[in-house]
Amino acid sequence: MARLLKAKPLADEAGERIKSAVNRWKKAGIAPAVAVLLAEGDPASAAYAAAKGRLAAKLGIGYELITFASDVTKNRLLKEIRRLNEDNGVHGILLELPLPAGLDSSRLAAALDPLKDIDGITPASKLACMMNETGLRPATPQSCIQLIKSAGVTLKGSHIVVVGRGETVGRPLMQMLLHENATVTVCHSHTKDLARMIQGADVLVTAAGKVNLIMPEMVHPGLVLIDAGINMLGDESGITGDAAPQTADYVDAMSPVPGGVGTLTTALLFENALHALTLQQAAGRLQV
Amino acid sequence: MARLLKAKPLADEAGERIKSAVNRWKKAGIAPAVAVLLAEGDPASAAYAAAKGRLAAKLGIGYELITFASDVTKNRLLKEIRRLNEDNGVHGILLELPLPAGLDSSRLAAALDPLKDIDGITPASKLACMMNETGLRPATPQSCIQLIKSAGVTLKGSHIVVVGRGETVGRPLMQMLLHENATVTVCHSHTKDLARMIQGADVLVTAAGKVNLIMPEMVHPGLVLIDAGINMLGDESGITGDAAPQTADYVDAMSPVPGGVGTLTTALLFENALHALTLQQAAGRLQV
Repeated sequence: MARLLKAKPLADEAGERIKSAVNRWKKAGIAPAVAVLLAEGDPASAAYAAAKGRLAAKLGIGYELITFASDVTKNRLLKEIRRLNEDNGVHGILLELPLPAGLDSSRLAAALDPLKDIDGITPASKLACMMNETGLRPATPQSCIQLIKSAGVTLKGSHIVVVGRGETVGRPLMQMLLHENATVTVCHSHTKDLARMIQGADVLVTAAGKVNLIMPEMVHPGLVLIDAGINMLGDESGITGDAAPQTADYVDAMSPVPGGVGTLTTALLFENALHALTLQQAAGRLQV
Repeated sequence: MARLLKAKPLADEAGERIKSAVNRWKKAGIAPAVAVLLAEGDPASAAYAAAKGRLAAKLGIGYELITFASDVTKNRLLKEIRRLNEDNGVHGILLELPLPAGLDSSRLAAALDPLKDIDGITPASKLACMMNETGLRPATPQSCIQLIKSAGVTLKGSHIVVVGRGETVGRPLMQMLLHENATVTVCHSHTKDLARMIQGADVLVTAAGKVNLIMPEMVHPGLVLIDAGINMLGDESGITGDAAPQTADYVDAMSPVPGGVGTLTTALLFENALHALTLQQAAGRLQV
């Protein structure tokens, strides 16, 4: 059995860092607060939003959950986003994705103030991620990178295979790994021989959203496997990742699902909110 | 000896497409024209600018070369860029890089009108390239892709190794190849075992700017090698690529330097200028 890369200790450490920072801000007269926009209709999104609310309470961060009916219009959401952009008492804004069908999430994301964009979804944040400039990064790739490092891997010079090229994980992750001087291979649904691509790699991050995509015969003993897949189990018994559970026996280390990437991601969203506060302060927006 | 992927036939084909398009625009009362901003002091840049001027004349495209002293200020260049942005008779603007030391080329690039940005260097163009949205793409990666296709390679599902992650070639190229559904490995100066990364790849594009980086023992008979390296030979006898010339004997096909990527790139810059015209027309800016 390989080492299990549990995220809880990392999330707890992040929590301690966040609580200290929150206290410093409060002493300076600023009560850190985030707002989450949630459209009804997706039970998973509602559950994630509720989990964020529980963690915010533990961390001493203000949390406003703004819920809309599933037939909410783009204009109604844009109006709310603009209100939150203007509100100096709100330091981070999260748009809970996916939005109901028919709503253009990239149009809505573009309306977010980049300095409050704590999951890095605005065009400005994406560009900063690509160019390695100051800005807020998406939390899921940050979580993947922390988990890789927690396995003892030095990113510089490592060969890292990323499966998936989506906007939430794969695409920003490949940019961030390149900025860390890793050698990066990006695989996806059109990759012809995934097992061959993984041969000899130091790290595999899978974010494809496909159950049993990674099987024991595709991995090797030295591999660190970060499972960023989230797949709903049909019987409502929870979630599973992209790697078959028995894969853990054939690698050096593996992050579980649940209890891995997602667990740390939630904490890192709040760490991003504190980063957002420092960016807002640097921009002269806060009365400290 | 492998197949030599000469760019001249592709550049000539592009030239024919461009000339037809230029004639159509002229019949509609628009004379396509580009402006090139050149700061003195870099002989290679001056030579490239002159080569563009000769090609523009052959293609019937107006060409304005604006030359500045090597101590030109940022503000002077910004003023000129703004003037060209406003000038409806100028449809494409090129900032000849590298600029003299001390000038922030990304600040200047950001001032270009994205609809006239025929080498895809503005933030808006870079974002569009990453997101696969409408916009102007940098010409060198376009040239690499056309050369790959000319070798008979189907990009979808191919494994393509890109050496170099610079803003001009590697970074945009990896994005464009992923949008074409290739599997992409990005290598660079921190890659530990470049030869191993190349093993089994379908295509290798090298854009590292390092003489003899690619040697015969690193390649294999099925490989298509696109050499996007430009290295000045110290004795002023011209340029050479990243691959040692004898590498050609050990691959399926290889593009030469000179006569490869760069030759086609110049033509594609003018094809981009015509694309810029259609974008400007769609934006309602042209009186056709």
